[in-house]
Amino acid sequence: MFREVINTISPYIPGKPISEVKRELGLEKVIKLASNENPLGPSQNVKKALMQNLDELGIYPDGNCTELKLKLSKKLGVKPSQILLGAGSDEITQFIAAVFINPGDNAIMAKPSFPRYETVTKVMGGVPVELPLKDFTHDLESFYNNINERTKVIWICNPNNPTGTIVKKKELYDFIKSVPSHIAVVVDQAYKEYIDDPEYPDATEWLNEFENLIVLQTFSKIYGLASLRIGYAIASEEIIEKLNRIRPPFNVNHLAQIAASAALDDEDHVKKAKDLNKKSLEFFYKSFEEMGLPYIKSYGNFVMVDVKKDAVEVFKKLLLKGIIVRPGDIFGMPTYLRVTTGQEGDNMGFIKALKEIL
Amino acid sequence: MFREVINTISPYIPGKPISEVKRELGLEKVIKLASNENPLGPSQNVKKALMQNLDELGIYPDGNCTELKLKLSKKLGVKPSQILLGAGSDEITQFIAAVFINPGDNAIMAKPSFPRYETVTKVMGGVPVELPLKDFTHDLESFYNNINERTKVIWICNPNNPTGTIVKKKELYDFIKSVPSHIAVVVDQAYKEYIDDPEYPDATEWLNEFENLIVLQTFSKIYGLASLRIGYAIASEEIIEKLNRIRPPFNVNHLAQIAASAALDDEDHVKKAKDLNKKSLEFFYKSFEEMGLPYIKSYGNFVMVDVKKDAVEVFKKLLLKGIIVRPGDIFGMPTYLRVTTGQEGDNMGFIKALKEIL
Repeated sequence: MFREVINTISPYIPGKPISEVKRELGLEKVIKLASNENPLGPSQNVKKALMQNLDELGIYPDGNCTELKLKLSKKLGVKPSQILLGAGSDEITQFIAAVFINPGDNAIMAKPSFPRYETVTKVMGGVPVELPLKDFTHDLESFYNNINERTKVIWICNPNNPTGTIVKKKELYDFIKSVPSHIAVVVDQAYKEYIDDPEYPDATEWLNEFENLIVLQTFSKIYGLASLRIGYAIASEEIIEKLNRIRPPFNVNHLAQIAASAALDDEDHVKKAKDLNKKSLEFFYKSFEEMGLPYIKSYGNFVMVDVKKDAVEVFKKLLLKGIIVRPGDIFGMPTYLRVTTGQEGDNMGFIKALKEIL
Repeated sequence: MFREVINTISPYIPGKPISEVKRELGLEKVIKLASNENPLGPSQNVKKALMQNLDELGIYPDGNCTELKLKLSKKLGVKPSQILLGAGSDEITQFIAAVFINPGDNAIMAKPSFPRYETVTKVMGGVPVELPLKDFTHDLESFYNNINERTKVIWICNPNNPTGTIVKKKELYDFIKSVPSHIAVVVDQAYKEYIDDPEYPDATEWLNEFENLIVLQTFSKIYGLASLRIGYAIASEEIIEKLNRIRPPFNVNHLAQIAASAALDDEDHVKKAKDLNKKSLEFFYKSFEEMGLPYIKSYGNFVMVDVKKDAVEVFKKLLLKGIIVRPGDIFGMPTYLRVTTGQEGDNMGFIKALKEIL
């Protein structure tokens, strides 16, 4: 009855929801530092805009996201026809696989990286070619060496989730230039807005040069709209036109469109979130150093720390104290925890609990 | 670069949004009777519930839709593990195709019917077997005769969009019983709640008997939540488990979950929408009869009327008067218009305009 490949796909394991942990453990206060969310949430603009738009919920959303696309196109310096909105950039990974991958085709990706690249490839009958990180970073030399006549898509998560490392400007540019132009190169920049480093490349700048380049960005991270599901792809008009052919007609809900538009108008809030994240990472680094725990310097809003023992055990003990993080076993890094930066008090609560446990 | 099949897929053509028509034609008032929306919108409960839930938008939604599933399971008399939520039942059609269809496999569907069945089949490399309606109704005898060793999915839209006709209880039951049990039978009941007729089957009642049956329902129609994107599948635990493997982890946004839950609590509102629809259909029927226009008796919240001339021309003339309907050419019924039932005044406005034009 079912396709055989479906049995080789594991359902995604999300971070435990706060409500579930509260219920299961009978806890009143739970700190969640597990899903790389913005602890400040979205701009206050967003709530105001939503309050004003709760009266026409019976009508289908604008499937073309016309106004939001216009606003994004101005911000990004591309044409509206070079943008496609999705229910999170997550949803767009499915469209990309569906547009490029025939059964038996290959898609190259790092391991560990965002797990959906693998799933969407398998769903289309493709073969995920998962290449180990080198120094916790994409090994683009290995990526290049693994390109063959069946390669159709190359996924680069920059910065990489879960390790937080980046591929730098010159290296990424040279790599994309070396890839045959019939292979789609996807650069997932979900955490881009957290980064100041001049060595970090915004691949959007190279769209005119590379017709096979797709950039993914999201409103789920620094814009604080994870609950509403909205993200986007930027690419050549030709690629966007193909992705549009298979996009469900009303894939992005109306309130997400309203919220994203309002969020774009509040750059101060974005700066605030960025500053908080910077401070939080510094606090984590300093604390880990004091505790003698190795960690991976991160460009995102999360950091991986080596607790030097079974991370699942540490994860469970943290959970009993009402703190949710991600154990590294699911990423093949069994002594690491991935911790999202939180509000100051939550960060301190996590470090205090970790010290008690270790 | 792209899969060949993508070029054979046309992007979905949605009904024109009100804002676009206003902008293009410089009109102040526009009546949209084009997308089978509930003209009353959702229950007032929904707005209240949303207002109370605008403060934690930065957090990912509960990917399992735990609370909503529990509520639905009680209402429907099935286990929570027999339910899968989607961003509209529309999104779930993709998961169904992905779970059952290998390249070259067949999916049987009516023509005209909901166009996404064809798209999702093609995306998976499958072959849509589109069988003409008989008396504007699914021809299940022809469906049965077209089953072969490559058949994997059978789509039945009941009532059918765009014709509004139903397959009756005994006929549907006998058909499902005759289908080999390794073939998935999908019964799309998007308009179910509008129907009183005892001859209309709720296929959910047969789930215990048929392991290969999938029922689709939605909050976009009578519950008035089209803008938020939420619908669901009900099936055996085994089928739901497979669909879950490929579901994006956070496919249903948080506010849609809140809204759907609130909408379920207001059965009065559902009744009000149902009554209004019944009155509207009666008004349309009477008006069409007076005008000598044949129409198809509908079980949904829309009706097809034969304007006995090129429907695109009539559609364009209605548009100039600020009234949006769907011309039947896209359904292969070039002299028909599909009209959604609206508020009383809007219905009258449409009939008045149609009289002037014809």
